[in-house]
Amino acid sequence: ARTGFAEVIYCSNKADEHLLKIFERLYHEEGEVLGTRASQSQYELVREKFPQVQYDPLSRILKIEKLDKVHEGKIAVCTAGTADIPVAEEAAQTAEYFGTHVERIYDVGVSGMHRLFSRLEVIQEANCVVAVAGMEGALASVMGGLVSRPVIAVPTSVGYGANFHGLSALLTMINSCANGIATVNIDNGYGAGYLATQINRLALGK
Amino acid sequence: ARTGFAEVIYCSNKADEHLLKIFERLYHEEGEVLGTRASQSQYELVREKFPQVQYDPLSRILKIEKLDKVHEGKIAVCTAGTADIPVAEEAAQTAEYFGTHVERIYDVGVSGMHRLFSRLEVIQEANCVVAVAGMEGALASVMGGLVSRPVIAVPTSVGYGANFHGLSALLTMINSCANGIATVNIDNGYGAGYLATQINRLALGK
Amino acid sequence: ARTGFAEVIYCSNKADEHLLKIFERLYHEEGEVLGTRASQSQYELVREKFPQVQYDPLSRILKIEKLDKVHEGKIAVCTAGTADIPVAEEAAQTAEYFGTHVERIYDVGVSGMHRLFSRLEVIQEANCVVAVAGMEGALASVMGGLVSRPVIAVPTSVGYGANFHGLSALLTMINSCANGIATVNIDNGYGAGYLATQINRLALGK
Amino acid sequence: ARTGFAEVIYCSNKADEHLLKIFERLYHEEGEVLGTRASQSQYELVREKFPQVQYDPLSRILKIEKLDKVHEGKIAVCTAGTADIPVAEEAAQTAEYFGTHVERIYDVGVSGMHRLFSRLEVIQEANCVVAVAGMEGALASVMGGLVSRPVIAVPTSVGYGANFHGLSALLTMINSCANGIATVNIDNGYGAGYLATQINRLALGK
Amino acid sequence: ARTGFAEVIYCSNKADEHLLKIFERLYHEEGEVLGTRASQSQYELVREKFPQVQYDPLSRILKIEKLDKVHEGKIAVCTAGTADIPVAEEAAQTAEYFGTHVERIYDVGVSGMHRLFSRLEVIQEANCVVAVAGMEGALASVMGGLVSRPVIAVPTSVGYGANFHGLSALLTMINSCANGIATVNIDNGYGAGYLATQINRLALGK
Amino acid sequence: ARTGFAEVIYCSNKADEHLLKIFERLYHEEGEVLGTRASQSQYELVREKFPQVQYDPLSRILKIEKLDKVHEGKIAVCTAGTADIPVAEEAAQTAEYFGTHVERIYDVGVSGMHRLFSRLEVIQEANCVVAVAGMEGALASVMGGLVSRPVIAVPTSVGYGANFHGLSALLTMINSCANGIATVNIDNGYGAGYLATQINRLALGK
Amino acid sequence: ARTGFAEVIYCSNKADEHLLKIFERLYHEEGEVLGTRASQSQYELVREKFPQVQYDPLSRILKIEKLDKVHEGKIAVCTAGTADIPVAEEAAQTAEYFGTHVERIYDVGVSGMHRLFSRLEVIQEANCVVAVAGMEGALASVMGGLVSRPVIAVPTSVGYGANFHGLSALLTMINSCANGIATVNIDNGYGAGYLATQINRLALGK
Amino acid sequence: ARTGFAEVIYCSNKADEHLLKIFERLYHEEGEVLGTRASQSQYELVREKFPQVQYDPLSRILKIEKLDKVHEGKIAVCTAGTADIPVAEEAAQTAEYFGTHVERIYDVGVSGMHRLFSRLEVIQEANCVVAVAGMEGALASVMGGLVSRPVIAVPTSVGYGANFHGLSALLTMINSCANGIATVNIDNGYGAGYLATQINRLALGK
Ligand SMILES: Nc1ncnc2c1ncn2[C@@H]1O[C@H](COP(=O)(O)O)[C@@H](O)[C@H]1O
Ligand SMILES: Nc1ncnc2c1ncn2[C@@H]1O[C@H](COP(=O)(O)O)[C@@H](O)[C@H]1O
Ligand SMILES: Nc1ncnc2c1ncn2[C@@H]1O[C@H](COP(=O)(O)O)[C@@H](O)[C@H]1O
Ligand SMILES: Nc1ncnc2c1ncn2[C@@H]1O[C@H](COP(=O)(O)O)[C@@H](O)[C@H]1O
Ligand SMILES: [Mg+2]
Ligand SMILES: [Mg+2]
Ligand SMILES: [Mg+2]
Ligand SMILES: [Mg+2]
Ligand SMILES: [Mg+2]
Ligand SMILES: [Mg+2]
Ligand SMILES: [Mg+2]
Ligand SMILES: [Mg+2]
Repeated sequence: ARTGFAEVIYCSNKADEHLLKIFERLYHEEGEVLGTRASQSQYELVREKFPQVQYDPLSRILKIEKLDKVHEGKIAVCTAGTADIPVAEEAAQTAEYFGTHVERIYDVGVSGMHRLFSRLEVIQEANCVVAVAGMEGALASVMGGLVSRPVIAVPTSVGYGANFHGLSALLTMINSCANGIATVNIDNGYGAGYLATQINRLALGK
Repeated sequence: ARTGFAEVIYCSNKADEHLLKIFERLYHEEGEVLGTRASQSQYELVREKFPQVQYDPLSRILKIEKLDKVHEGKIAVCTAGTADIPVAEEAAQTAEYFGTHVERIYDVGVSGMHRLFSRLEVIQEANCVVAVAGMEGALASVMGGLVSRPVIAVPTSVGYGANFHGLSALLTMINSCANGIATVNIDNGYGAGYLATQINRLALGK
Repeated sequence: ARTGFAEVIYCSNKADEHLLKIFERLYHEEGEVLGTRASQSQYELVREKFPQVQYDPLSRILKIEKLDKVHEGKIAVCTAGTADIPVAEEAAQTAEYFGTHVERIYDVGVSGMHRLFSRLEVIQEANCVVAVAGMEGALASVMGGLVSRPVIAVPTSVGYGANFHGLSALLTMINSCANGIATVNIDNGYGAGYLATQINRLALGK
Repeated sequence: ARTGFAEVIYCSNKADEHLLKIFERLYHEEGEVLGTRASQSQYELVREKFPQVQYDPLSRILKIEKLDKVHEGKIAVCTAGTADIPVAEEAAQTAEYFGTHVERIYDVGVSGMHRLFSRLEVIQEANCVVAVAGMEGALASVMGGLVSRPVIAVPTSVGYGANFHGLSALLTMINSCANGIATVNIDNGYGAGYLATQINRLALGK
Repeated sequence: ARTGFAEVIYCSNKADEHLLKIFERLYHEEGEVLGTRASQSQYELVREKFPQVQYDPLSRILKIEKLDKVHEGKIAVCTAGTADIPVAEEAAQTAEYFGTHVERIYDVGVSGMHRLFSRLEVIQEANCVVAVAGMEGALASVMGGLVSRPVIAVPTSVGYGANFHGLSALLTMINSCANGIATVNIDNGYGAGYLATQINRLALGK
Repeated sequence: ARTGFAEVIYCSNKADEHLLKIFERLYHEEGEVLGTRASQSQYELVREKFPQVQYDPLSRILKIEKLDKVHEGKIAVCTAGTADIPVAEEAAQTAEYFGTHVERIYDVGVSGMHRLFSRLEVIQEANCVVAVAGMEGALASVMGGLVSRPVIAVPTSVGYGANFHGLSALLTMINSCANGIATVNIDNGYGAGYLATQINRLALGK
Repeated sequence: ARTGFAEVIYCSNKADEHLLKIFERLYHEEGEVLGTRASQSQYELVREKFPQVQYDPLSRILKIEKLDKVHEGKIAVCTAGTADIPVAEEAAQTAEYFGTHVERIYDVGVSGMHRLFSRLEVIQEANCVVAVAGMEGALASVMGGLVSRPVIAVPTSVGYGANFHGLSALLTMINSCANGIATVNIDNGYGAGYLATQINRLALGK
Repeated sequence: ARTGFAEVIYCSNKADEHLLKIFERLYHEEGEVLGTRASQSQYELVREKFPQVQYDPLSRILKIEKLDKVHEGKIAVCTAGTADIPVAEEAAQTAEYFGTHVERIYDVGVSGMHRLFSRLEVIQEANCVVAVAGMEGALASVMGGLVSRPVIAVPTSVGYGANFHGLSALLTMINSCANGIATVNIDNGYGAGYLATQINRLALGK
């Protein structure tokens, strides 16, 4: 593709026949395919035609990936809690699919800040940090205060009550008083992985 | 008063005659009076009758205070930025009026976290911490992760855009994943000072 | 733990393997474990490894508790209606787990205010009152007008229509014109029990 | 008028010429006129043509009223605080203009509940109670639990922060768990006085 | 009861044992019981102990009613569409249970206004009109312009998209430019029936 | 212009030099200019250079218009109250500027529905109806039930309290159960006049 | 019908007996019937009585249609993505049912804008364009900038997170800076097809 | 500074003495200072002490800048309309202050898309695009579909009615179906300029 990124399938709500048709077209164009937000039954559907397809129920990524993939540069994907890991994995695996080297630093939120400090060096070396957090989403602000590279903040719908399905974390991130924080949609790991790859490529001189 | 707290005047929107009448009644009942959210012109109005009245334009507190006030125990009042100081002063001066000893630790938000760490010991010794912050309000979460005493979180309307006049900070504080955080209304320094005093008194065995 | 509170497991949305691993780690560190928001099937999962585990389907608390637990001081946990009891039990059992003596005063909301007045003395003797209410949440305001100790207000999602899943009660509590009211998240009984314990400990000189 | 109520002028935002024209028309049709939400300068404008016009800056009511007005039946207009009085006066004076006898019981909110109990008998004898309250608006719920006649709840914009200009009080009143509570718009004293008159007339067999 | 209204059971979310216990207590106190928002399985539960209990799946009312009930006065219960009928029936049956005579005028909304005009006389004779409408809820305003008695407006959650589960209709009713409109919670037929009964009783001189 | 509509200047917030520059350019391209949302001082600014410019403080339209303008077809512009007239005039004058014949039918809302019925024939003959209303905005629904041509609904910010600056009327119009209603932004008279002209032109075979 | 449009059944939430009764009545009045938002089980219910009934699970339209239907004029129905097709089909099939000729141009959103440009001529020839889009709904603005005929914008609930079930797309469309855009409710394909037909008929001189 | 970015002063709401003190400190540390959101009177205040200070009333930037500043790399700052220029200038001048080369491409929104296409090449060559837009904010989506580098979307508060002071544009940008879009707070030009600089530096291998 002109953008250097192949088209990706957002599987959610796609009718079976539409999903299969797009999957086939992309497979023939690119020799590999990435689908996000796929369900178990969509996996089974696609597997009938493409037995080599892989499905990760945590990130809900459905893909056929070329074998010779090289992962370059470095981004860090961090989460505040363990419940944020599915969104973080969507980000990490998207970035890896597009050739980015990913460091995972999970469960380093405000209540586990010592774990954050023990991994700080690797985070500070990354070209870009993805900060994934629900509830009040303070991780993005904390991160923004500690690193000099762009932070992509991903609010998650993790939490209850006045989290309003992720709105609370979204507002936190958009209003952060720390510098260098850019926000994507609630639970949009895919978008964060894409952006992080764009930034990482620039750092690689691509 | 039965509660151990004299009545306080919320001056905002009070008609002149009402304000004066209540001020006089309370002065005669208690020998001292605390008014919050007073304007400069309300100060001038009251000063005509009570030349000894004191007014602080920052906290907007208007008061006549007994000379022999003792300040006991210890609470810490912290702010994320300098723009949060007016609300913090409302909290601090309210607590002092009710006999509480207050430590002020200002401008220790996410972008100045080293200042927070340099004052951490005094914060951890307090019976109660008041955390005042606008924008995304992450200070309360950070504080909650560092101290074992109750944190009273005061969201402020400081910020712009999607802070929605303090709603963003309020949601952050209500959803905090840190333990031991209780929230009051946006810009409600008075309420925080009152609560901190209640808790400080319990710690003093009162 | 440094804070005097052992780590607690928020079971909701935890993958089985994660839940078990954390449960085991905490059990070995502390000799007891508290889990909140556990489902029946999580209980069955944990019971296979820890036959002594206890589960209360009302509060959804899953725990192994040391036998020699002493309950000191006094807090009061009150509800407006019977539908608020599950949240109140989460608060009460959390406080008890952390060594607090709890008085339960349920179903004393605006439509049963005579019941409130008949229990007023015990409420006024508590070091801290937890007020749990849904719908319009007026209980917190009524309570704040009657006691001189801190009131921790817990809005619940009980109600329908314009209660907006607890937002109505949350706003009521945050805006209360009564003094000494601190608010936690919608349905956050755990947070209220934790805070009440912090306050109760201060009153005990701990 | 067919409805038994003369037309009323909502003065706010009316152009001078429109206001004067409607005022004249109604004066000639009815021999008296009621205008709500009038400004001082609108008063001065109308006074030039109608020197007998009366203006109350508190309620912002502008009127020429027939001399022989009889006030029948009984309604009670109550407020939580003194800042709610302007809205209450709009309600009370509207009801009086339409021939209703009004009892005013002001400043009897949650923090002055003893004053409420001292006036309870007169409230319970009214055909209808108007409860005017801002901030969290708990007065309506308390009232609903104490009287057997309809309660018309008027939320006011009094307060700050998360009161969201009266939304908090409005939601409280709409969600009240007490029976017999009907709500009108924020600050709509006029509408409450009108409704209370409709109910009072039914009680009078009119 | 002092209020002239027996206590009513809000069945929704009640645990089985709680529901049965309250049902029994009320039955013994009053010789009849009204429950709202009951499910089919709650009906079956109660029927085991009280075979004479009646259940209407449309209004979800579960009741044992005395045989000699007289229905006096007159109220009109109107709906905009057929999908609003369940809420209207909750209102009508509640009012009837409390001794009120009810006229039902259904499906007379803006798209069927000719049907409204054909029934106008009976509506105008009622002591009180209950207007039940979802979507944009314009029925309440239309009604308010046509009758001189109080209109109790009940917004319903009928509709989709930007109806926001009834918020749209609620705002319409609260902001109505017609006089004499009082609003209750979304889908709160019970509350409307109760209020209409209070007003009808006043008209009957009770 | 390709679209058959000349460019229009939205004057609000334009810097003086920008406004003048655009005004001049359009005048030279078209020989006439239409500006909306102009202030008195912008009028005075433009008048210095273009003494023939006309300004209507009600609609806030600032224009130089060709003398030979023909008004064809027919649209009806209706308002619920008199306070909605400024927005209606913006719509009407925009449509007239673009060559449309406009019938004005003002103050025909729910409280003056008899006036609506007396003008119904002219409304029903129009190719398109513009319904302008604030508060609860029911006029659009009423209109939609009475005419067979498209209704363009314009919510206005007229009202107070829970009108939320026009949101209430907007939601009413978007959710209308009447057929054939299309909605534009709050107070967007210009947009309605433009759309009505597009529809009127189609009816004229243009 | 007087309006030139037969009554349409909104099947959602209709009780079986109500649905059947209305279906029969309309069939006998018109000889054909259109139902929207029908479920599979409603289809099976109606099919028992009317074996000739047709059901499209994508658009959820249930209908009996006369055989001799002529489709005149031209409207274009466009979607941003494939997930918006069900709503677009509701619009297209409604318009066809009412005798309108429809061009379908699907999947031409911002990420496939080249497809939009390849179909631009047919879009620009239409009397009216229906633009169906979820997520951020930018298609309507893009379309408004390219065509000179009215654009009816239909926001869809497609998306996740901060799309707030279609609110995001609705606000986009209502605030569009392009001219000639009218908006209907979220997912309201029916309303858009109806409006497009009204406009198309005017263009046909009907 | 460790981050490679000197501290910047957010002047809004700063007390005069605080502003001066911080300005002096930073000037002595860095030999240059950048202040954002400064008022005319703050400019006059600072000028007394620092006659060399420069103030731009459009962007509201107040600064003393070193003479030897080199601007490297390339970013593009684009606006939808002219009213968005103040925010865009805050972004552009911030980036330039930090050493970034900026291309300005203004007034290229949906209604001037031909202007966008005429400048497309320079936009596509930038390392990062800043898209500034109010009202419905569609520019960000359009841009995201045309470039392969990261797009930083800045919603502005430009517009009226349902733009809700920028919320509409913010939601549009957060929900964009185009890839590679990161969003900052409403009117936050500073934040966008900072982020764009971070990305540009990575592309420069810094
Ligand atoms: N999880 C995701 N969240 C948001 N956008 C996505 C996601 N996965 C894929 N996309 C984008 O959605 C586009 C596909 O939309 P569609 O044509 O509906 O399949 C792709 O081009 C991706 O840019
Ligand atoms: N304060 C008020 N709040 C709400 N409605 C009012 C108020 N005062 C008068 N009204 C109503 O507004 C109508 C007048 O509207 P208008 O034609 O705009 O003057 C009157 O018939 C009253 O029903
Ligand atoms: N459908 C209903 N909606 C709102 N309130 C109700 C409803 N049904 C009963 N109630 C009220 O709720 C109270 C009982 O609440 P509870 O003690 O939770 O059963 C009764 O006294 C009624 O006043
Ligand atoms: N999908 C739809 N969305 C909105 N309104 C509809 C829809 N389908 C039908 N309608 C309208 O709803 C009215 C029928 O409402 P009802 O009487 O509840 O069946 C019809 O007259 C149509 O105008
Ligand atoms: Mg940083
Ligand atoms: Mg802590
Ligand atoms: Mg108290
Ligand atoms: Mg009562
Ligand atoms: Mg009426
Ligand atoms: Mg119509
Ligand atoms: Mg156009
Ligand atoms: Mg792109």
